[in-house]
Amino acid sequence: MRKLGIVIIGLLLTACGSDQSTPSAVGTIDAERTYNWKLVTTWPKNYPGLGTAPETFADLVERMSAGRLQVEVFGAGQLVPAMEVFDAVSQGTAEMGHGAAYYWAGKAKGAAFFAAVPFGLNAQEMNAWLHHGGGLELWRELYAPFNLIPFAGGNTGVQMAGWFNREINSIEDLAGLKMRIPGLGGDVISLAGGTSWNIAGGDIYTAMQTGVIDATEWVGPYNDLAFGLHQVAKYYYYPGWHEPGVMAELTVNADAYAGLPEDLQTIIEVAARAVNQDMLDEYTAKNNRALVDLVDNHGVDLRRLPKPVLAQLRRMSAQVVDELAAETELTGRIADSVKAFKAQAMAYHVISEQAYNDARRADDE
Amino acid sequence: MRKLGIVIIGLLLTACGSDQSTPSAVGTIDAERTYNWKLVTTWPKNYPGLGTAPETFADLVERMSAGRLQVEVFGAGQLVPAMEVFDAVSQGTAEMGHGAAYYWAGKAKGAAFFAAVPFGLNAQEMNAWLHHGGGLELWRELYAPFNLIPFAGGNTGVQMAGWFNREINSIEDLAGLKMRIPGLGGDVISLAGGTSWNIAGGDIYTAMQTGVIDATEWVGPYNDLAFGLHQVAKYYYYPGWHEPGVMAELTVNADAYAGLPEDLQTIIEVAARAVNQDMLDEYTAKNNRALVDLVDNHGVDLRRLPKPVLAQLRRMSAQVVDELAAETELTGRIADSVKAFKAQAMAYHVISEQAYNDARRADDE
Repeated sequence: MRKLGIVIIGLLLTACGSDQSTPSAVGTIDAERTYNWKLVTTWPKNYPGLGTAPETFADLVERMSAGRLQVEVFGAGQLVPAMEVFDAVSQGTAEMGHGAAYYWAGKAKGAAFFAAVPFGLNAQEMNAWLHHGGGLELWRELYAPFNLIPFAGGNTGVQMAGWFNREINSIEDLAGLKMRIPGLGGDVISLAGGTSWNIAGGDIYTAMQTGVIDATEWVGPYNDLAFGLHQVAKYYYYPGWHEPGVMAELTVNADAYAGLPEDLQTIIEVAARAVNQDMLDEYTAKNNRALVDLVDNHGVDLRRLPKPVLAQLRRMSAQVVDELAAETELTGRIADSVKAFKAQAMAYHVISEQAYNDARRADDE
Repeated sequence: MRKLGIVIIGLLLTACGSDQSTPSAVGTIDAERTYNWKLVTTWPKNYPGLGTAPETFADLVERMSAGRLQVEVFGAGQLVPAMEVFDAVSQGTAEMGHGAAYYWAGKAKGAAFFAAVPFGLNAQEMNAWLHHGGGLELWRELYAPFNLIPFAGGNTGVQMAGWFNREINSIEDLAGLKMRIPGLGGDVISLAGGTSWNIAGGDIYTAMQTGVIDATEWVGPYNDLAFGLHQVAKYYYYPGWHEPGVMAELTVNADAYAGLPEDLQTIIEVAARAVNQDMLDEYTAKNNRALVDLVDNHGVDLRRLPKPVLAQLRRMSAQVVDELAAETELTGRIADSVKAFKAQAMAYHVISEQAYNDARRADDE
């Protein structure tokens, strides 16, 4: 029964017309019954974008429910450490979590597909795959054994390749590199002869400063400036080949969710969807301003990864994805779904976004 | 007081932390009080994407409010004709409307900025400008004299240039063209010596079939296939230089909105935001499949507009935008805001989306 419930939830936003509509009867609201939930996150409390998104979520839920569902948000380490958010929500220590799926790749094989795939879908395509391409149903299948229901919970857009204390002129320059880079991107760095570290955001600056690592990616100009990463690295490389649009996640303990009346369940789902878009809107608006600040006021050395390096990273990324696809029956199905969607998206991209952007630039005058 | 209220609403989704939070007290819900609203649209009832979005909106609102706010959706012509939606909501004949702002350019000068600007912002950038770049506040200022509160209500992504019964090899081929194309794109076609027509979607097929017009743009493969436009035109041109991401709108009569309790007001705002993203997700997922169908199964002749034609359209578009900017003090402020945001967005685009897409394509191997 639980699984059926989860599938119906996943289709809510695409349900149209009265045939699929099953509203609660008027007057069933128990206005006296309140719920006090905890939401634990992998981000520093109120960290710009990533950390303010769950605060906005909590605010919207409280307002829409007229205070019947109150969600208290905890930053990393306030209730549980960043990298224990998944387990805490799974076990019910907190009812909800906010983080990114690739942090849990060691627990749920294939989770990385729902955060970012190197050379994979960008933010717009990831949202389309999740909500109209079968992605969300696969994600819920993957998390169901952990008693978790995932929702898309924000997107950063295309990230930067990261901060380096050595120049990257050829693929050989990645050999021996100690880099903070989670998920499948980290597996690619390992394949290239480096070592990949999964370090929570709040600990990156110190790890770079003390030389524990000699390179790191984090997000993009807006967030990287907030952490002061320009103070501990020489070069700022683009583009974010490994993270073309990281999907943040909101997870809900399935038992806690099942204990809510239907109106509050829907309020959670719709607030998540709104916050999912709002985070991307915020990053899109603020990244450029922060980049100008980094370059003009902090003298950051902005560099593009050489094309041959990107080409080799692309081949290695395909290998990493293929290996993950071969691990379980479910990772195989997820990889097939992503691959088919990406092929379609890239073909249409050529005559839509790409053709438009070519036309918008005045390079032919 | 009304204006202050509107500004607060506009900032809701970006408000974080308890200092800006003013939840209703628990137990203030009047579970017996129900509201029955009408929502009129400019689209055929249940038309894919554009027409199903308001149905989804109504469904989500009903579920989140446990049936306390019921919204009945009317297709174009069912309650009022498509092109009377703005007036009907302004006057309170219906509490809500769904359409696109450029249909009302003759009533509210500058409305076109909130639907699509030729060679302007794409969907991701438009959402960012609206919600984190000051756009929504300007839109609400523009609609306030009409007693309307606008919300972003969906986005189609980059559209197609349209269906033509003549080849477009030079800018001269637009002279004498009778084309259905609303908004600023229509003004550009007029500047190029054609005539632009604003015809509701449901009437386009007949207008093309009877030769009233000899070209039309509509949306993109998914919607154009649904209307059968390939049956009445020879050539299908891209890219959609005039509509790089049309923003649909949800409008609410300001008095009706003020009469709702705060939880239902927030439910409307958040449902709108969720539907706004859901429509883009749907178009992103379905356009490519429809394009394959059009080309492979219907033999559509797909063509790219020549670069010199696009370059001349770009110059004419800048002229049209400048002329609109000069019309009123408010259109000037809106144009300045869009222009500044676009310059930033395009600069960052070069090192983010564009650099990433170049890296993703295997053209350098």
